[in-house]
Amino acid sequence: MKRLATGIDIGGTNTVIGLIDETGTIAGQRSFKTRDYPVFEEYAQRLVGEIETLRSLAPDAEIAGIGIGAPNSNPFTGFIEDPVNIRWYERNADGSQRAPLRHIPIVSHLKQYYPTLPVVIDNDANAAAVGEMIYGGARGMQDFIEITLGTGLGAGVVVNGQLVRGHGGMAGELGHVLLRPGGRVCGCGRRGCLETYVSATGIVRTLLEVMAEDLRPTPLRSTPADRIDSRMIAEAARAGDPLAQETFERTGNLLGEALANFVAFTQPEAIFLFGGLTAAGHLLWAPVQRSMESHMMRNYQGQVKLLPSGLPQSEAAILGASALVWQELHHPTPQR
Amino acid sequence: MKRLATGIDIGGTNTVIGLIDETGTIAGQRSFKTRDYPVFEEYAQRLVGEIETLRSLAPDAEIAGIGIGAPNSNPFTGFIEDPVNIRWYERNADGSQRAPLRHIPIVSHLKQYYPTLPVVIDNDANAAAVGEMIYGGARGMQDFIEITLGTGLGAGVVVNGQLVRGHGGMAGELGHVLLRPGGRVCGCGRRGCLETYVSATGIVRTLLEVMAEDLRPTPLRSTPADRIDSRMIAEAARAGDPLAQETFERTGNLLGEALANFVAFTQPEAIFLFGGLTAAGHLLWAPVQRSMESHMMRNYQGQVKLLPSGLPQSEAAILGASALVWQELHHPTPQR
Repeated sequence: MKRLATGIDIGGTNTVIGLIDETGTIAGQRSFKTRDYPVFEEYAQRLVGEIETLRSLAPDAEIAGIGIGAPNSNPFTGFIEDPVNIRWYERNADGSQRAPLRHIPIVSHLKQYYPTLPVVIDNDANAAAVGEMIYGGARGMQDFIEITLGTGLGAGVVVNGQLVRGHGGMAGELGHVLLRPGGRVCGCGRRGCLETYVSATGIVRTLLEVMAEDLRPTPLRSTPADRIDSRMIAEAARAGDPLAQETFERTGNLLGEALANFVAFTQPEAIFLFGGLTAAGHLLWAPVQRSMESHMMRNYQGQVKLLPSGLPQSEAAILGASALVWQELHHPTPQR
Repeated sequence: MKRLATGIDIGGTNTVIGLIDETGTIAGQRSFKTRDYPVFEEYAQRLVGEIETLRSLAPDAEIAGIGIGAPNSNPFTGFIEDPVNIRWYERNADGSQRAPLRHIPIVSHLKQYYPTLPVVIDNDANAAAVGEMIYGGARGMQDFIEITLGTGLGAGVVVNGQLVRGHGGMAGELGHVLLRPGGRVCGCGRRGCLETYVSATGIVRTLLEVMAEDLRPTPLRSTPADRIDSRMIAEAARAGDPLAQETFERTGNLLGEALANFVAFTQPEAIFLFGGLTAAGHLLWAPVQRSMESHMMRNYQGQVKLLPSGLPQSEAAILGASALVWQELHHPTPQR
């Protein structure tokens, strides 16, 4: 009998659910607006409804489990903790909404509907890493790092074929490695975190820095800072704008420096880059590769592959979430 | 039948061999001068002789395997690679010594004598980490980091109960994380490595920096720089010397900053500090702890234990080497 995993990607805007087989082929996919269901219980009901709809499309298949990728989720507790971009409420007995839920018991809630299935959750960057390992470019690798470049910088670290989850389920926060202590203010409350330099938002800050230092004209000076995004900087750089090019140069240098330190930690076979910023292609890749090599110890030089993710950008999230199920069957999450 | 592991610590000066049971009790111990045997084959013969002597002291015990801790060793190849402090030669047919051996096949050589026993090797910092896990303060822990503060800074990282060895057996080189890129020259050829600041030699360099900045008198100004060691700085600090105190303060701050980044990587349950510099006690501990907490993300604060190693300093090396045997029985080193 064919086995399928349910992958759920919970984002601030959309919730996407997919049924995926062991090779990464998507048998079916559904989605709805997360914010249409501000009451958590109603959200969960809609979620279960979609899972059942998908399941009815593949009546002959066996469902191996449910995997969830969500920001701020904890694989050990099964909770989404204090999410920043998602707000759910409890409903009072009289039907009115109560205070926002800070700890969202998503796994235990789904377990009520599916008591015999493995239900697992992890943050989106860890899910992406497991997706890379099961369906993507990291198949057969025991040691690699997946870096996701979005609004922030996320990471999933795999060692000895297993995800590094840490003592409390919060390992791999490489966006919050202090690259320049005392440097740029970060959303986490500290200064100098890697993601304040290297991310879709970090690169815009770097452009502002370059524009402040340099007097040369650039069309980017005519756009308000809060309208500039990494794609516009990439376009300007491709059109020959030296300031935009310098911005990518600095971003790549800093990421390469950080990656060199990551290599000293786990000596991965490969580092995969994933996410919107990687669309800049050579503009980003060239300085990252050069900087990583020049910052590494001699023993590591020329030995760590820097690769684009092998997952399709648009479906990576549900693929990653579903991959958590196959990983769980091999290496059950310890009860801590 | 009692089971014992043979632990061998190969250092530039001494080679120490011990027979150790599963609780860390040393049943017997021998040593000789490494440099008395510049021809590798003769060194190996003496080593085997000592192993046999020890074995004859415990005729009723079963030997579970041989574990070796040695600098620059590779667990996957079984070689000691380009050692800096040890020089062995091959002998020509006419008895004259040939060029120094760059790749020393220590494991395969011992395997000729002990074909049925597991023979495993790893660098001394990894061996210390495994020793901590099997006999010391990390018993029962799945995720921790062992930092050894000697001439340099070594580290062993344990994740999911297994040593992080990396794709090529060279993971955990945390002494060569770039803490201050462009900073102090390191023996590895780069600038700004953690161990140029935090180690027995790094702290002396920091003292020189403090003496350069500060005009106040200190008895340490009357000692030539190449005679100053970390113990003298600790003594001066305890006697109230503000420059020596400032030196420990800076050293601890930098180590704490580095540890905070390590926590973002693997979120260990504990970080163990081991080695000569830890004898400074509170002088080092207080600033490390303070700096680590203040540099960590809020989610990690107050959750990572900073602990002294639970291994006795003088026997840690053979304990760690022997522990590699017990670890190997649980998690065999993959053939890569």
